[in-house]
Amino acid sequence: MRKVETRLRVRYAETDQMGIVYYSNYLVWMEVGRVEYCNQAGFQYRDMERKGGVMLTVTEAQCTYRAAAEFDDEVQILTWVTDLRSRSLRFAYEMRRARNCQLLATGATQHLVCNLDGKPVRLPKQYRSFFDV
Amino acid sequence: MRKVETRLRVRYAETDQMGIVYYSNYLVWMEVGRVEYCNQAGFQYRDMERKGGVMLTVTEAQCTYRAAAEFDDEVQILTWVTDLRSRSLRFAYEMRRARNCQLLATGATQHLVCNLDGKPVRLPKQYRSFFDV
Amino acid sequence: MRKVETRLRVRYAETDQMGIVYYSNYLVWMEVGRVEYCNQAGFQYRDMERKGGVMLTVTEAQCTYRAAAEFDDEVQILTWVTDLRSRSLRFAYEMRRARNCQLLATGATQHLVCNLDGKPVRLPKQYRSFFDV
Amino acid sequence: MRKVETRLRVRYAETDQMGIVYYSNYLVWMEVGRVEYCNQAGFQYRDMERKGGVMLTVTEAQCTYRAAAEFDDEVQILTWVTDLRSRSLRFAYEMRRARNCQLLATGATQHLVCNLDGKPVRLPKQYRSFFDV
Repeated sequence: MRKVETRLRVRYAETDQMGIVYYSNYLVWMEVGRVEYCNQAGFQYRDMERKGGVMLTVTEAQCTYRAAAEFDDEVQILTWVTDLRSRSLRFAYEMRRARNCQLLATGATQHLVCNLDGKPVRLPKQYRSFFDV
Repeated sequence: MRKVETRLRVRYAETDQMGIVYYSNYLVWMEVGRVEYCNQAGFQYRDMERKGGVMLTVTEAQCTYRAAAEFDDEVQILTWVTDLRSRSLRFAYEMRRARNCQLLATGATQHLVCNLDGKPVRLPKQYRSFFDV
Repeated sequence: MRKVETRLRVRYAETDQMGIVYYSNYLVWMEVGRVEYCNQAGFQYRDMERKGGVMLTVTEAQCTYRAAAEFDDEVQILTWVTDLRSRSLRFAYEMRRARNCQLLATGATQHLVCNLDGKPVRLPKQYRSFFDV
Repeated sequence: MRKVETRLRVRYAETDQMGIVYYSNYLVWMEVGRVEYCNQAGFQYRDMERKGGVMLTVTEAQCTYRAAAEFDDEVQILTWVTDLRSRSLRFAYEMRRARNCQLLATGATQHLVCNLDGKPVRLPKQYRSFFDV
């Protein structure tokens, strides 16, 4: 199973008045993890949309928050695929504070493979092998 | 059980290049629903933080996406409490396109009652009665 | 000159760790003001894109911050057009705390009229009369 | 004059239904540029808030948009200080598509030095030398 690591630094814009990262931003970070997963798997997500004509629409997202990320923290995101079917797939994520490896959050997203009109289709064969479950 | 309705209009900023609302924004809308829940229950969430000295930190969030919201759609959000304990509570949400009542998404958030230092505490008695399970 | 008023309530997501609204959100609010300007002028911005085939791309944005908006504040946005040319127009904005009319920010955005391929075009005649300078 | 470079990759979340980056996100990127300016100048912005007890509140922001950034573009941000006074300073920015050096946007932000209560104060001497105009 391929586990892909990416890192980002928490932006001021991502904090809220509690002094910690606002909870919806972890879903944005999961997307950053997915895009990097594709890069390291050997293709660009944007080419899959532009040239392959398919996109991965989100049908479910889930996040469990363990510790709060703070402004300027470096966050390590691990991304991997836990389920791959002909028309859908599932990503899992682990987010840690890079400085001390503290677990910040775990999550998952379920995706449907769709054409650019939003209709469910089979994942084209050339992309299938990239997702290593 | 109190079910509270609130409405908002989809902002251009909330769309993405798929032409639909980006998935993390539904969690922002759930927060809009929670704040209105508090208003209609009889208190202001911001006063609970400022005067009550407690906040509801999110420990889990989940969203199932059924249909895509689009720019300028009016969205109806139903918010209610499904579980209330001494130190935690759970909200559930239903989001619909107001025009045709089409279900857009359902979701839930789990919260821990914390003091302003982030330590778990009991929900103060004066707020307990507001949450009608 | 038509001055259009719209109101919104500050979301928790819009605050940052200073405890006030993060500065880029005022540009999102200006967009909310523009969309409402169109509504009150007699057309829907989304129809201008979908049916009219033109969009108003932003070429410049400016905001002067006078006082900080806070979570749950009701904000009043005044929007009007200060310049209208064949291929461009300029909006101005005034944002106030509704509770006490305190001025929060003033701003302006410059727009180029483009077709859906992003090429500058003349503003179609049927929309011209809507913008009342 | 110190000009600091930082780079970021455009997130899907930052695009809108025009298929390009939504205009308010350039102000978020300016903040990313400022934080990196501080890092390369020799201090951490978050320490200036936490330990120095001062923050740089934004009093004006301006952005001129030249070309549209797209999803997955690598963006190069140049940040420098154009004016430094006892209680205020001004940053300027240049954002380019890294792939071809195409200019995307230029901008500026004006800041007031404030203590943590939001009152204007003099920039502490130990930070003064870091800002190299």
